[in-house]
Amino acid sequence: MPGLNTAHSTAATVPVHPILANDPASDWMGIEVVELSAGHATIQMTLREEMLNGFGIAHGGMLFAFADSAFALACNHINDDGELADPSTITVASGVDINFLKPAKPGQLLTADAHQRHQAGRSGIYDIQILADGVVVAEFRGRSRTVPNPAFKQ
Amino acid sequence: MPGLNTAHSTAATVPVHPILANDPASDWMGIEVVELSAGHATIQMTLREEMLNGFGIAHGGMLFAFADSAFALACNHINDDGELADPSTITVASGVDINFLKPAKPGQLLTADAHQRHQAGRSGIYDIQILADGVVVAEFRGRSRTVPNPAFKQ
Amino acid sequence: MPGLNTAHSTAATVPVHPILANDPASDWMGIEVVELSAGHATIQMTLREEMLNGFGIAHGGMLFAFADSAFALACNHINDDGELADPSTITVASGVDINFLKPAKPGQLLTADAHQRHQAGRSGIYDIQILADGVVVAEFRGRSRTVPNPAFKQ
Amino acid sequence: MPGLNTAHSTAATVPVHPILANDPASDWMGIEVVELSAGHATIQMTLREEMLNGFGIAHGGMLFAFADSAFALACNHINDDGELADPSTITVASGVDINFLKPAKPGQLLTADAHQRHQAGRSGIYDIQILADGVVVAEFRGRSRTVPNPAFKQ
Repeated sequence: MPGLNTAHSTAATVPVHPILANDPASDWMGIEVVELSAGHATIQMTLREEMLNGFGIAHGGMLFAFADSAFALACNHINDDGELADPSTITVASGVDINFLKPAKPGQLLTADAHQRHQAGRSGIYDIQILADGVVVAEFRGRSRTVPNPAFKQ
Repeated sequence: MPGLNTAHSTAATVPVHPILANDPASDWMGIEVVELSAGHATIQMTLREEMLNGFGIAHGGMLFAFADSAFALACNHINDDGELADPSTITVASGVDINFLKPAKPGQLLTADAHQRHQAGRSGIYDIQILADGVVVAEFRGRSRTVPNPAFKQ
Repeated sequence: MPGLNTAHSTAATVPVHPILANDPASDWMGIEVVELSAGHATIQMTLREEMLNGFGIAHGGMLFAFADSAFALACNHINDDGELADPSTITVASGVDINFLKPAKPGQLLTADAHQRHQAGRSGIYDIQILADGVVVAEFRGRSRTVPNPAFKQ
Repeated sequence: MPGLNTAHSTAATVPVHPILANDPASDWMGIEVVELSAGHATIQMTLREEMLNGFGIAHGGMLFAFADSAFALACNHINDDGELADPSTITVASGVDINFLKPAKPGQLLTADAHQRHQAGRSGIYDIQILADGVVVAEFRGRSRTVPNPAFKQ
């Protein structure tokens, strides 16, 4: 099996997150979950040739997509059984401000650290920092919104 | 040949943009250039299954990457011969504010319209609107920075 | 009477907006309403010495406050009688991305043009452009949220 | 004497910052400096009636202006003599993303905590949190740019 499940089999303490179980985009990127707790997620992936732009550095969209996956994991808390803590809702991005600080290069190991900064009612603010081989390359601030889970059946 | 070259052979009036000639990410997305002029670009792609998130809608990162490609095309002007108007510089994203307004669904035709809103010295502001089957699904405001072209040799 | 009422008495076709009738901050700034329609507002003020920062140019906060007033006027539509079109709700800023492009100097006439760019349900996106003597000095993108009017009694 | 000098006389350990010495906007707001070090500033002010909008809560522009002052103090480092550490440059805001999370009310004590999050070359990212009576009411992320000091004479 490609992608996240493999990652999880080698990192036994990290539960498989349900929103990743069926996420083709995260799967294509080859994202591995390193740490996961309520309001926090750390993930990694290696920057591949097909993630570059015409200038030979990481496509901004790929860095964004990578951080966005960390954001989704930090927003949607799971319980010890690996199920959504509140299955009646999902939390999605309503918007993001991202700053690109340095280029990332093919072969580098990317890490995204997502932390909840604020939550009130259905709105939250999350900070996601992207590092390439340990150096900060982008800062992503996500705005989240909690909405009814369309897949939820009581 | 997959991707952009095919697109360009069927749209004879649109020049092949040099920054797309070697852009694996745009190629993977299957981006077609519809219109291209100084400070403006319109592109299209069809939303595929592998571009979805775990909720079955467009991954925010894919919408971002798609808009980011339109942004890059609008920022980096080409002349009638399809070469960078100023080969000594490239213009890259320094940051972006994006708002996700509606979900986009698999099979929808996505369009991104990028327009220069402001340019002064080496800094610019661009608006990119993303539509799915003609309905606005996201608004992307890009901040650009013009820097020396690392590939330029006098 | 200082401020907006005076302005309105000299611009007979512009209705007095109820959210300005009791807005000490806009009053202190000396804001004049130039144009007002659903989803649109144009206002003006002169940049005074007490609106400068320690570098002798417009304090970023003053430019922001000025644009924010135009944003509020464009968001909260009034009818021909100068009353809120829907008195049961008010629309407020949930967030803003602002770019400062050029410094503004004391004595300059500032203009803010606010336009609705998107509205769906209770969320909207507005663009506000700030000019100093006709030159763009800042671009402000506002995110609006419509909420129950705390002052509304049926 | 009103404003910052008074504040500083009661907080003997906090040096008077040169960019505040001549900042009419910060003076009008009644800002007091609580803490100041390289890349960090904490300031306070009381929310007055003339800082409200037409809804009777803090004008977004006043919260922004307040945070912007903390941002300026954190960006422009001073030495032990209270002079700019590098008098040949000043650091200004190129842009800001702000999220308004809760309304602030008249009479509340506002605090703004500014921290440098990233600095590379002439560009920086700063986080400024605004609290009203200890509760977070807004999150401000500033983008800074270091430019030549127009007042500098060698």
